[in-house]
Amino acid sequence: MIHRTELTIRTFHTDAFGHVNNSRYVELLEEARWRYAEDIGLVDLLKTEGLGFIIVDMRLRFRVPVFEGETIRVETSLESLGSASGDVKQWIYKSNETSVCLKSVFHFILIDRETAKSVPIEGAIRELLLKLVAN
Amino acid sequence: MIHRTELTIRTFHTDAFGHVNNSRYVELLEEARWRYAEDIGLVDLLKTEGLGFIIVDMRLRFRVPVFEGETIRVETSLESLGSASGDVKQWIYKSNETSVCLKSVFHFILIDRETAKSVPIEGAIRELLLKLVAN
Amino acid sequence: MIHRTELTIRTFHTDAFGHVNNSRYVELLEEARWRYAEDIGLVDLLKTEGLGFIIVDMRLRFRVPVFEGETIRVETSLESLGSASGDVKQWIYKSNETSVCLKSVFHFILIDRETAKSVPIEGAIRELLLKLVAN
Amino acid sequence: MIHRTELTIRTFHTDAFGHVNNSRYVELLEEARWRYAEDIGLVDLLKTEGLGFIIVDMRLRFRVPVFEGETIRVETSLESLGSASGDVKQWIYKSNETSVCLKSVFHFILIDRETAKSVPIEGAIRELLLKLVAN
Repeated sequence: MIHRTELTIRTFHTDAFGHVNNSRYVELLEEARWRYAEDIGLVDLLKTEGLGFIIVDMRLRFRVPVFEGETIRVETSLESLGSASGDVKQWIYKSNETSVCLKSVFHFILIDRETAKSVPIEGAIRELLLKLVAN
Repeated sequence: MIHRTELTIRTFHTDAFGHVNNSRYVELLEEARWRYAEDIGLVDLLKTEGLGFIIVDMRLRFRVPVFEGETIRVETSLESLGSASGDVKQWIYKSNETSVCLKSVFHFILIDRETAKSVPIEGAIRELLLKLVAN
Repeated sequence: MIHRTELTIRTFHTDAFGHVNNSRYVELLEEARWRYAEDIGLVDLLKTEGLGFIIVDMRLRFRVPVFEGETIRVETSLESLGSASGDVKQWIYKSNETSVCLKSVFHFILIDRETAKSVPIEGAIRELLLKLVAN
Repeated sequence: MIHRTELTIRTFHTDAFGHVNNSRYVELLEEARWRYAEDIGLVDLLKTEGLGFIIVDMRLRFRVPVFEGETIRVETSLESLGSASGDVKQWIYKSNETSVCLKSVFHFILIDRETAKSVPIEGAIRELLLKLVAN
């Protein structure tokens, strides 16, 4: 399953090169992952159990610059799911275009927000994610 | 007493207008307040007592744009101190220049970081701050 | 006329106090002004003429902290319009609540994005804004 | 050659997990690269020629969380230099500690800031960088 989010680039996303700053892409991609998580009911599940996903590895490749006022489409998909971690792929396109502006992969683990320790991905959360893994 | 901090503007501080973005000024000014607090031993005092200052009101006036690669001088002074709050004035200049780029005032209160409740400014913290209030 | 935008607070908007960081409010409020400008066709008008609004003075008062996962409602209204500047009022509420979390006023001017010089607010842009000024 | 920069973590670098937010690491690492570039005279060289380095690929691995008030040491080294691109390695440690908090690699190209096109790394800039490549 591929989830799609549209986001519009604002002045505060850009830098003096005129395009989106590297660190802002990390935030735009996080926003897209949150919207995916909300759409499938994952945010509520995590909240109920006091858990949270955190990123332990991320790789971003910048292909085409994006400018203020442009709208992007973030395509997010769960690529793999292990017992305590997984990989999310996120590609950015300009809306209504098919060439890729950015390719990224985020490796995540699940943690208990109270103890900040890694915990296995089990139960209802695992069931939900298993349905989404790209085939 | 006026405290001076020099900071250099990086690409990530700027936006597509070429100059420092409004929200980044808030961070540059916070950085300058932290350096002041470190220099006078306030950070250690706060940490020991589990307290923290938070901003409840801020006003910033932007006069002259600042660009990537430029170095600014932030002049910070404690303008007034009440029983549970106070005002910090921060003006930004370009280094080696005397015209003001930005004028700001931050109104702060002291809180207990555990309870997030406002507490009176007393004891060693009060003594320290009283010596710094602008005359 | 009051424009309303709903925005959800993400982890990257918050800081170690657990609530939205001051500088992030500046960005959330900018986002809300952009959405207002888009909804009324102002963004296209500005682009066509190579103009942009910039903030020259801002005042923010923080009343109630907002936390990760909460949804806010930003109410934006044009309070006054002069020959070359104006004031926008923006108040933030938690969604479905009526107590104010943040009050702010932004004073803006219109500039030519090529020259970065202030220009009068005239023609189609003035006509559009005059209809929106709060009565 | 390994360049070392010390930076202190402020509230605005952290998020509600209590530690430095992912996107803020990108900025802290950019700050450390700028300081390296300043220390060796590269910033002036780039400015004179109207050139700039931009990141086209970045990989960050988060090992140990860093908290508000902690001071980090960023170790930056130029790993390789091609005709038009190169790799910078940046590892973060807590000051006075030897365990790694973050490992990262940034792949960069040189561009003409006027045209935004990639240009070969030649002349004085190449000479300077060749001396720094890790052996």
